[in-house]
Amino acid sequence: MKHNSYFDGKVQSLGFERHGRKQTVGVIDPGEYHFNTDAPERMIVVAGELLAKIGTSGAWLHYPAGTSFEIPGTSGFDVKAVLPSAYVCEFL
Amino acid sequence: MKHNSYFDGKVQSLGFERHGRKQTVGVIDPGEYHFNTDAPERMIVVAGELLAKIGTSGAWLHYPAGTSFEIPGTSGFDVKAVLPSAYVCEFL
Repeated sequence: MKHNSYFDGKVQSLGFERHGRKQTVGVIDPGEYHFNTDAPERMIVVAGELLAKIGTSGAWLHYPAGTSFEIPGTSGFDVKAVLPSAYVCEFL
Repeated sequence: MKHNSYFDGKVQSLGFERHGRKQTVGVIDPGEYHFNTDAPERMIVVAGELLAKIGTSGAWLHYPAGTSFEIPGTSGFDVKAVLPSAYVCEFL
């Protein structure tokens, strides 16, 4: 298991692997962050709510706990949390 | 946000707070572990599957992703993972 810390510890995650597929669980503290993707990713919100802006759409969309969004590979996305929120990220 | 590590890093979690209530997200590597509770807790499995033995029932019950179990305060529980599995823990 690998502990990752980004943006001065405001985004942290724990990486693990199931059946050869990588996943992380993490927490996003209040703020706005940009992440680049290598592989495509599915972000599943498991506590709280995230806002995400994916690709060139320019729109912030709300993803409350229980919902998910996908990000194409070799791209990036902006993500924002108002209160600390938790996610599972599956690398596709 | 607080990074916690237990059992030589085989169980790790990230603690956060929402609306004054404490939560953690964590990963449990393969193995069997015992945790004591102070406050009552709700464990929500968000990836994989956990087995839990709560109280004096003596039975291991299966909790696949999407299900949850609760543990009384001032007690403890045994938890087991066959593959790395992730959870959200709410302190009640």
